[in-house]
Amino acid sequence: MDLLFLGTSAATPTRTRNVSALALLEPRGKGWFLLDCGEATQHRVMQAGLSLHELQAIFITHVHGDHCYGLPGLLASAGLQGRTRPLTLVAPAGVEAWMDATQQMSQLSLPYPLQWLPTESLGCWSSEHWLVDVTELSHRVRSFAYGFTEARPESRLDQARLLADGIARGPVWGQLKKGIDAAYEGRTLRSRDYLIFPHPPRRVVVAGDNDRPELLAAACRNAQVLVHEATFSLERPVETRFGHSAAGQVAAFADSIGLPNLVLTHFSSRFQDNPERSPGIADLRAEALQHYRGGLWLAEDLARFRLDRTGSLCRVLPAPARDPRP
Amino acid sequence: MDLLFLGTSAATPTRTRNVSALALLEPRGKGWFLLDCGEATQHRVMQAGLSLHELQAIFITHVHGDHCYGLPGLLASAGLQGRTRPLTLVAPAGVEAWMDATQQMSQLSLPYPLQWLPTESLGCWSSEHWLVDVTELSHRVRSFAYGFTEARPESRLDQARLLADGIARGPVWGQLKKGIDAAYEGRTLRSRDYLIFPHPPRRVVVAGDNDRPELLAAACRNAQVLVHEATFSLERPVETRFGHSAAGQVAAFADSIGLPNLVLTHFSSRFQDNPERSPGIADLRAEALQHYRGGLWLAEDLARFRLDRTGSLCRVLPAPARDPRP
Repeated sequence: MDLLFLGTSAATPTRTRNVSALALLEPRGKGWFLLDCGEATQHRVMQAGLSLHELQAIFITHVHGDHCYGLPGLLASAGLQGRTRPLTLVAPAGVEAWMDATQQMSQLSLPYPLQWLPTESLGCWSSEHWLVDVTELSHRVRSFAYGFTEARPESRLDQARLLADGIARGPVWGQLKKGIDAAYEGRTLRSRDYLIFPHPPRRVVVAGDNDRPELLAAACRNAQVLVHEATFSLERPVETRFGHSAAGQVAAFADSIGLPNLVLTHFSSRFQDNPERSPGIADLRAEALQHYRGGLWLAEDLARFRLDRTGSLCRVLPAPARDPRP
Repeated sequence: MDLLFLGTSAATPTRTRNVSALALLEPRGKGWFLLDCGEATQHRVMQAGLSLHELQAIFITHVHGDHCYGLPGLLASAGLQGRTRPLTLVAPAGVEAWMDATQQMSQLSLPYPLQWLPTESLGCWSSEHWLVDVTELSHRVRSFAYGFTEARPESRLDQARLLADGIARGPVWGQLKKGIDAAYEGRTLRSRDYLIFPHPPRRVVVAGDNDRPELLAAACRNAQVLVHEATFSLERPVETRFGHSAAGQVAAFADSIGLPNLVLTHFSSRFQDNPERSPGIADLRAEALQHYRGGLWLAEDLARFRLDRTGSLCRVLPAPARDPRP
């Protein structure tokens, strides 16, 4: 699974960072998920070379504009590009009604159906490859994290056990390998009893705006990666963080649970990319490093990370040339 | 008055052009008007170096999303930047209610008042320097053109007439020069009787989407510049233009009324900037030139034109280096 950041600035775009959006995609497959959709997300989607035809679902973490004002334009452009496949949208209360009002105001009719699911009662949702769960966070409005767990992690057949159980090599082996339970000589063979999983299933948690990272302790238990906002630094008093977290606060939480990889994003525009200016993104990195011993990453727009089958996270491509136009 | 194009693509952004927005501004002053506000207009505003503090009014031509989906984000960013001055918004029916719904959904409160005026009943509106009028056009939804006429064109005192009328040099001359009627020895002197205007007032007409350019004949009578969409070329049959105009059609209209300058914009994304690809913007230019003998311009994002006091239009700055990111 790849994480491709489409927007990493809080509240308002800067010359180098757009407002929130993140694509989760298979390295080779075409299908992808979109997490949040701030204004001009469709522009970043175009720059990243992603196809709106292949977008499988959109997940909105909360109703603030920098996380959803890009929905109308992105959905309209998908229609203009001829999309006909239904699109799933998982969003907190209010977003669907607003999108309806937007379509009515602007007389926008889409050539594909929208399938809305309320975040608050999502429970567990699954696509072909991923199981998605929800954790509620703490912010000025209801805000949520989405957890993505690999539905069918890499596996191989336990041939020794198959032979020991008297199951002859044949089509039934292929069925079990595919994860399908099989009937065999009056017995039902459970696929998972005959598969060996060299690695635990991959799991990524993507959090919305949140001032209490510890609410993610359970959600992060088997996760290799947490993507979390770090809007401010610890220098800002907690009572003036407006429901947001500081880099060091998130880092300390991640360290306390032994999280392997932490990706910080959603930086206040006061933190500048230019390493010669202060306060800068470099200051947030330094603060987080003081509290966290795992793999730390500070997201940039169009930066792409890969979580491979072994659960390792790495940056896969250099970011495109720095460019002032989000 | 300068015209600074912030978006010149129809319906959907391309790698070189954003959706509709146009800034009208004084060459030296800070105040400016925004005509239409497609998604990511605030990004272009930032790139153009315009200040949201100095934005005086927004005029929306019609309710289609590529002309107004950028409003929520732009208004929110103006608030985050600390704007407190009221902002006038002139928009067709539906936009104000949608903006209300958007603010409610996203819990957006602005630190400055919005003063909404309905386009349909605007009549004539005036700012310090400009008088604004409205013309209804023909499109799939109600669509409008805004005409901007210089309120106080350049002038000088008619000293010969002042002296002939026995008005002695003194403070009253200064008052008349400023355009203010003055009391003098029991008479009321009308300023305009003692001013000489070397040039007619400047007038620019900016049209929304429209398939009948001839509706602008009266509005363009004393205009030096018309900004009009040219979504398609004449090769596309009129019945499949979806309420839009072809470049040659607008050009023929402009020629028929002897319009001095025509700026075409709002090009379908099928017309490419690369002169080696067809169909291209160059084809639209060639088509328009076949029908129009005045000054023809095809807008580009961030291109800036100046209408000087004499009524001449020229491009004032080279466009910034071509850049794929709207």
